[in-house]
Amino acid sequence: MEVKVAIDCMGGDHGAHVTVPAALSVLRGDPHVSVILVGRQDAIEPELRRHGAAPDARISVRHATQIVEMNEAPASAMRAKKDSSMRIAVNLVEEGEAAACVSAGNTGALMAISRFVLGTLPGIDRPAIATILPSLKGHTYVLDLGANVNCTPEHLLQFGIMCSELVSSVEGKPRPTVGLLNIGAEDTKGNDQVKGAAELMRASGLNFHGYVEGDDIYKGTTDIVVCDGFVGNVALKTSEGLAQMLAVYLREEFGRNLYSRLAGLLALPVINAFKSRVDHRRYNGASLLGLRGVVVKSHGSADAFAFGFAIRRAIEEARTGVLAHITERMADIHKSAA
Amino acid sequence: MEVKVAIDCMGGDHGAHVTVPAALSVLRGDPHVSVILVGRQDAIEPELRRHGAAPDARISVRHATQIVEMNEAPASAMRAKKDSSMRIAVNLVEEGEAAACVSAGNTGALMAISRFVLGTLPGIDRPAIATILPSLKGHTYVLDLGANVNCTPEHLLQFGIMCSELVSSVEGKPRPTVGLLNIGAEDTKGNDQVKGAAELMRASGLNFHGYVEGDDIYKGTTDIVVCDGFVGNVALKTSEGLAQMLAVYLREEFGRNLYSRLAGLLALPVINAFKSRVDHRRYNGASLLGLRGVVVKSHGSADAFAFGFAIRRAIEEARTGVLAHITERMADIHKSAA
Repeated sequence: MEVKVAIDCMGGDHGAHVTVPAALSVLRGDPHVSVILVGRQDAIEPELRRHGAAPDARISVRHATQIVEMNEAPASAMRAKKDSSMRIAVNLVEEGEAAACVSAGNTGALMAISRFVLGTLPGIDRPAIATILPSLKGHTYVLDLGANVNCTPEHLLQFGIMCSELVSSVEGKPRPTVGLLNIGAEDTKGNDQVKGAAELMRASGLNFHGYVEGDDIYKGTTDIVVCDGFVGNVALKTSEGLAQMLAVYLREEFGRNLYSRLAGLLALPVINAFKSRVDHRRYNGASLLGLRGVVVKSHGSADAFAFGFAIRRAIEEARTGVLAHITERMADIHKSAA
Repeated sequence: MEVKVAIDCMGGDHGAHVTVPAALSVLRGDPHVSVILVGRQDAIEPELRRHGAAPDARISVRHATQIVEMNEAPASAMRAKKDSSMRIAVNLVEEGEAAACVSAGNTGALMAISRFVLGTLPGIDRPAIATILPSLKGHTYVLDLGANVNCTPEHLLQFGIMCSELVSSVEGKPRPTVGLLNIGAEDTKGNDQVKGAAELMRASGLNFHGYVEGDDIYKGTTDIVVCDGFVGNVALKTSEGLAQMLAVYLREEFGRNLYSRLAGLLALPVINAFKSRVDHRRYNGASLLGLRGVVVKSHGSADAFAFGFAIRRAIEEARTGVLAHITERMADIHKSAA
């Protein structure tokens, strides 16, 4: 299926230096994709030239004069940045010009703009951010990761439903298992929010596994782990911090003396195979779920390799019709409740 | 200073096989410690004999007929297990027979029993569980880890004060820095609970750093990270899960073929040095803070090496007078507020 993706080329720590080559590499790998590169012409066009490319049938450039800063308040980005690359990329989805958009920019601003421009799907109160983390069994989808700091049980249920449709569409798993993040597997554990959500999930027709704990994310106990945005964000950032610390320690130990440096040299292919297995760049691309349009957020520090994964994720979601599936599912639930 | 510690010898996954040799190793390393080994005589005495030891001036055995099961409901343990090794160990602290107690048993039951038997310190509404995690700068104290799933800003402030006194006593750091776990460093981020706690902490005289994020735990941005028990438990368990997954992947990669096995053999001293640096056994021993007595909880799966660290932690807390420091500090705050 032909898919056209709008790419916010100015977002993230590296802007067009990363986003343009990533887009070109996706185009090379998939003949049924075209892109609209959104941002300052004087940043995008030299990058295209540098990679021997130019605007053509599959590459169009859409000039945008403004840039949403990484630490700008979402409200200010909404009000004052109507000609930003981020805003235009989302507008292109709303106007039907693009089937999906991708940005490595300010998460809060991207969520606020997407919500304002696209609106939410019927039956969805709040969009959520879902990402993929590696697990012993493959990978686990986790949501929400920070869009919603205060969630009701109903919100958590909606997160479970949305992500269930995402996983069944993108992964081809018909009834993915859903776990609810808690601090113990027993029914008595947890706060009112979680207990209420468990009750709703049990009655929802979801393939609800029950409560899971933090370690189940990496054990791969369920396909999906649902939590509120505060908890999910802490879990994700804590994981990043631990992984970084372990990497520093490993580097220090292998650099300690002549023997360890030699051992490290010999072990390099093994260490690299290990690194590639847990390479967070392969998991880059968080889905803003629940909007009337496909929006994928890349990590701000993504390189071209990582940003390419975020673009491909957006393409997959557009191709497999995730939004239509969520809408149908919410309508079914609404019908059966009425 | 002479310290007598009551040890629940029956708690944890391994009972007396682990707790008794751990106690003996602590006794060997510190001539000013004595222990009361609490539990079934027919389990403890053979273990003593197996290690060439016997009851003497520094080792007494206190028989207890019951055992609190690892998955027993705290309420049932409180009601029906009045002659359990856990209950007797806590009683010994209350009676002034021991200066501290240690258990690897059921966390919920240990907290419930300790709260009931010992009560909380003046000014403390709820005890919290604090543990140590390794960081790039040494280590970080994190609390609460699951005792309190719903916390008010006042509770979080009390956690910060208690742990501040713990760190200044045990680590000899006069004004340890305190970070409040949030999903961003900006003032606008977070839920009402966290925003309220930040306001209280700013006015409290604590060395308050401000908001920190999950990765700051392992970066060592602050000496202490305060959060509610739900979030803290998820952060801890998520870390455990990630570390386990990485260990499995590393083992698999080094076992993949003849070359990688050989490289692994050569790298073994380096890998072992790395492992020892992040060895969670060295961080074993979570403090139940806010009680009128020193209670330390060991991980249930601790081996004798790890359990020894939990005993030593209890001894340190008793020696440095953490409880008196918390009491004084709370009295000061109460006075200045009056």
